[in-house]
Amino acid sequence: MQQSTLVRLKEDLELKKPILVVGLPGVGLVGKLVVEHLVDELEAEKVMEIYSPHFPPQVLVNKDSTVRPVNNIIYHGKANGNDILFLVGDHQSTTSQGHYELCSLYLDIAEEFQVPRIYTLGGYPTGKLTSDETVLGVANDTKLIEEIKEYGVEFRESEPSGGIVGASGLLVAFSRMRGIDAACLMGMTPGYLMDPKSAQSLLKVLCKMLEIEVNMDSLEKKAEEMESILEKLKEKEEQQQQGYPEVKPTEEDLRYIG
Amino acid sequence: MQQSTLVRLKEDLELKKPILVVGLPGVGLVGKLVVEHLVDELEAEKVMEIYSPHFPPQVLVNKDSTVRPVNNIIYHGKANGNDILFLVGDHQSTTSQGHYELCSLYLDIAEEFQVPRIYTLGGYPTGKLTSDETVLGVANDTKLIEEIKEYGVEFRESEPSGGIVGASGLLVAFSRMRGIDAACLMGMTPGYLMDPKSAQSLLKVLCKMLEIEVNMDSLEKKAEEMESILEKLKEKEEQQQQGYPEVKPTEEDLRYIG
Amino acid sequence: MQQSTLVRLKEDLELKKPILVVGLPGVGLVGKLVVEHLVDELEAEKVMEIYSPHFPPQVLVNKDSTVRPVNNIIYHGKANGNDILFLVGDHQSTTSQGHYELCSLYLDIAEEFQVPRIYTLGGYPTGKLTSDETVLGVANDTKLIEEIKEYGVEFRESEPSGGIVGASGLLVAFSRMRGIDAACLMGMTPGYLMDPKSAQSLLKVLCKMLEIEVNMDSLEKKAEEMESILEKLKEKEEQQQQGYPEVKPTEEDLRYIG
Amino acid sequence: MQQSTLVRLKEDLELKKPILVVGLPGVGLVGKLVVEHLVDELEAEKVMEIYSPHFPPQVLVNKDSTVRPVNNIIYHGKANGNDILFLVGDHQSTTSQGHYELCSLYLDIAEEFQVPRIYTLGGYPTGKLTSDETVLGVANDTKLIEEIKEYGVEFRESEPSGGIVGASGLLVAFSRMRGIDAACLMGMTPGYLMDPKSAQSLLKVLCKMLEIEVNMDSLEKKAEEMESILEKLKEKEEQQQQGYPEVKPTEEDLRYIG
Repeated sequence: MQQSTLVRLKEDLELKKPILVVGLPGVGLVGKLVVEHLVDELEAEKVMEIYSPHFPPQVLVNKDSTVRPVNNIIYHGKANGNDILFLVGDHQSTTSQGHYELCSLYLDIAEEFQVPRIYTLGGYPTGKLTSDETVLGVANDTKLIEEIKEYGVEFRESEPSGGIVGASGLLVAFSRMRGIDAACLMGMTPGYLMDPKSAQSLLKVLCKMLEIEVNMDSLEKKAEEMESILEKLKEKEEQQQQGYPEVKPTEEDLRYIG
Repeated sequence: MQQSTLVRLKEDLELKKPILVVGLPGVGLVGKLVVEHLVDELEAEKVMEIYSPHFPPQVLVNKDSTVRPVNNIIYHGKANGNDILFLVGDHQSTTSQGHYELCSLYLDIAEEFQVPRIYTLGGYPTGKLTSDETVLGVANDTKLIEEIKEYGVEFRESEPSGGIVGASGLLVAFSRMRGIDAACLMGMTPGYLMDPKSAQSLLKVLCKMLEIEVNMDSLEKKAEEMESILEKLKEKEEQQQQGYPEVKPTEEDLRYIG
Repeated sequence: MQQSTLVRLKEDLELKKPILVVGLPGVGLVGKLVVEHLVDELEAEKVMEIYSPHFPPQVLVNKDSTVRPVNNIIYHGKANGNDILFLVGDHQSTTSQGHYELCSLYLDIAEEFQVPRIYTLGGYPTGKLTSDETVLGVANDTKLIEEIKEYGVEFRESEPSGGIVGASGLLVAFSRMRGIDAACLMGMTPGYLMDPKSAQSLLKVLCKMLEIEVNMDSLEKKAEEMESILEKLKEKEEQQQQGYPEVKPTEEDLRYIG
Repeated sequence: MQQSTLVRLKEDLELKKPILVVGLPGVGLVGKLVVEHLVDELEAEKVMEIYSPHFPPQVLVNKDSTVRPVNNIIYHGKANGNDILFLVGDHQSTTSQGHYELCSLYLDIAEEFQVPRIYTLGGYPTGKLTSDETVLGVANDTKLIEEIKEYGVEFRESEPSGGIVGASGLLVAFSRMRGIDAACLMGMTPGYLMDPKSAQSLLKVLCKMLEIEVNMDSLEKKAEEMESILEKLKEKEEQQQQGYPEVKPTEEDLRYIG
C-alpha cells in the first residue's frame, strides 16, 4: 500500500507558532468556502501539497488544459504580524482508514511547526430550508470552550448528538494527544447545496477570534448567485406543478464558483 | 496503512493473573450492557485506550462539548481480591481485516498480563419477540465447558449453527493458540433493540461464575424504560391500524442510555 | 495489515515430490466435495492450517460446542506409495487482494515440498438443470493438456470464455512461473446447489489420473439426498402453481452434509 | 498486502529515450484499440509483464486451453529508428489505491528508461449516438499543448469538466513531478460500445505526431463489423416496437475482437 505523499514547496519555512485553520470539503462546503476566502484575501502562499491514494484516482483540468491530481494544500498567510497556516483541498479521504492516516499526517505537520491551536471549520446540517446565523462549536479542552464562547460560538450539551464524521472531528480529538488546543466551528446550513451565507456567518466569528478584518464582497456575491439559483429552482418547481415543461438549472448555474 | 494504537494510561500496571471480560457492541447490546454495568458497580479504572483506523472515522461529543475519538477501552477492577480486566467500546471493527488485527492486539494484551481465562459476552438473536432467560455458551476447551455448565450456561450441539461473527467469536477461538481458556456467553434476545433484560440474565450467570454480587438497579431501570418504549410502540402501531396518525418514538425515547 | 498465518502441525514433514490436489469452495461445491471425499477415504492427515484476515471474521461451532476460526487446511495422504497433499477449506478469500496473497502462500508451500504438479478442482456452471458428466479442463502447459486428454478430460477452445475467477484459476496460472505443471479440472454442474453428482464424475476422472480406486458410497448417498431434496422442491413448486400453500424446504434439507 | 509484480522478459533492454504510449481499457476501448493496433503493425516485442493484486483475481483462457493471469504488458517497438514503449492490458486497477500504486510503478519504469514523453490514449464519452472525429487533449505542460495543437488535437478550456478518472489522467499529472512531458489524447465516442471508428481518428492524429504510417485495414474491418452489429440492433429495436419477438445479438456479435 502506497503512503500519502507530502510535497514541500518551501524547504526553509520558518514560522512563529502559527495557528492552523482547516477548511476541507464537507456539508454545504461551508469550511472550504471560508478558508479559500481567507487564502485569497490574505494572499496566502502555497507551501505544501498532499497527495494520497485515499483520494479518488482523479485529475482535474485547469483553464489552460493542463491537469493536476486532486490534492490537499497547505498555505501560509500573515495577519496582524501573526503566521497562519491554512489547510484546504479538493477531497477528504474516500476510505475510513485514509481519514486516520491523513489526520495523523496533518498533526505531524502541526507538531513540526509548533502549532499551538487548530480551528477546523465545517457545516452543521439542520435539514431545514431557513438559514440560521448560529455558529456551533466543540473543542478538545474546556478552557478553550470558555474562551471561544466570548466570540458568540454556541456550545450545546452533547451536540452534534451523532458525533462528527471526517477530518474536522478527528483533528480536534486527536490533537489533544499531541498537546494542541483545537476546536471545530460549524456554520448552520440546510446542507443541500453550497452555502456561502453560512460561510459568511462563520467567517465573521473567525475574524473576530483572529482579530482580523477581511473584505467579504466575493462571498457576498456567491451568496447572491446561490440565492438567484434557488429562486429559479423554486419558480421552475412551481411551473411544473402547473404543468409547465421541466427546465433544469444549467451546469453553469450550479457549478462550484471557486 | 496505519496500525491500531494502544495508549497505556498506567505504565506500571501489575496484576495477578486477571481474567478478561469482553463486552463489545453486538446483537441487542447485551455484552456491552453487562460489562459497562460491572465497570460502574466495581468502580473499575480505565487503564488502556485503543484507537484504530478500522473504527469509523468519527468522534463523539461529551456533555461539556469536548470530543473524543470512538475507541475501545480496557478497565481494571477488583472483586474478592481478584484482578479483573474489562474490555468495552463504542464500536467493533468496520472491516473484516480489522477484526483479525484487533483480536490479535487484544490477545497480545492478554498474554502480557498472563490472563488465564477470557469471557466474551454477547447476544444470541432468537428472532422471536418473547424474552428468554437462557444463556448459551461455546468455549475453546471441553473441560471448561463442563465447568461452566454447572452455572446454568447451556451448550447445544453445533449451536449457533451459523457460527459467530466478530470479536466475541474470534477471541475465543484464537485464544486457544495462546494457551488461554476462553468461553463466549450469549444472552438470548429478540435482537431488534437494546435488551437490558437479556443483559440481566447474562449478568446473573456471570456473577455466579465470578463469585461476586452486584446491585442490578440501574439495569433494572433500563429494562423498565425499554419496556415502556416498547409499550408505546405497540400502542402506536395499533392506533395506526385503526387509522390514527403515525407518532414516531422520539430520539430521546430510543437513544442508548449508557 | 496482518498477514495470513500458516500453522505447521508437523514440523518434520518429509515428502517425496507430492502432487497437490486443491478443492476449495466454489460453484456447486464440486471441488470441495471431491477433495473432502478423498481425504476421508485415504485417511489423510492434517498437516497445516491457514488462517487469514481475508477470510470472514467468523468462527464455526463444533458438535461439542468448541469453536474454531474458519480456515483452509492442508492434509497429507498416500496412494500407491505416492505422497499427495490436499488443500481444502471453509472459504476462499473475501477480497481480491487476498486471493493473490493466499495463492502466493500456497505456491510457496508447493515449492517447499517440491510439488511437481497441481490439480485444482471446481465446478463449471452450465445454467441448465440437466446434469452432464463432462469434465472440462484448462492447464498451464500444452504437453500436460495432451496427457490429461487421455483420461477423458475435455479441452475446448478458449473455454471457459469468461475466464476463471478465484483460487482454482490463479493457482494454475501462477504455478507456471514457479516451474510447476498445473491443471484445473471442472465438473459440469447446474451451479445452483451443492452437486455431489458432478463431484462423482470429476472424482472418477481424477482417480484414473492418480491410478487409485476409492469407495464412492458416501458421495452416492449425498447425491441421492440432493435428488430427493430436488424432488420435494419440484413437487412443492407444482403444488404452488395449483394454489397449494408454500412449503419451504427445511434448513435440515438443505444444509451442507460434510 | 502483496505489492504489484513486475516481470522483466528482457533483462538487458537498452533503449534510446523512448516515448511511452499507453492504451489501457476505458471508455469505448478507444485507447486499447489504438495501442494494440500499433503493437501489431509495428511488430512490437513483449518486454515486461505486470501482475497486481489490484487487478481482478481472474485468469483468461487462451485458444489452446492454457491460462494466463490478467495483466498489463509493456511492448517495445521501433518506428523511424526511434524506440517506442507501449503499455496495454486487460484491466485497470479495481481499487482507488491500486490506481495510485500502479501509476507510480509505471512512472518508475518510465524514469528507468529515461522516457522524455508519455502519451496516454483514451475515449471521451459524448453521450450522443453520432460519431465525431475530434481528438481532445490535456497535458502537463503549456509548451507541449502548443506543439500538439499543430497536429489537430483540440484543447478546450477546463475540459473534460469532470476531470479524468483512472490511469490516463494520473500518469499525465504525476509525470510532471518526474520531469516527464505528458499528454492525454481522447477520441470522441458515444461511449456505449467498443468504438473502432473513434480509434481510427485517434490513431491518425497519433501517427502524424510520431511521423509514422500504419496500415489501418484491421481497424477499418472492426469498424465495419461494429457498424453491422449496430444496424442489426437498430432493426431489432424497430421490429420490437412493431410487436416482433425480441432477438438478442449473439455473444459472437458483441465479443471483443482483439
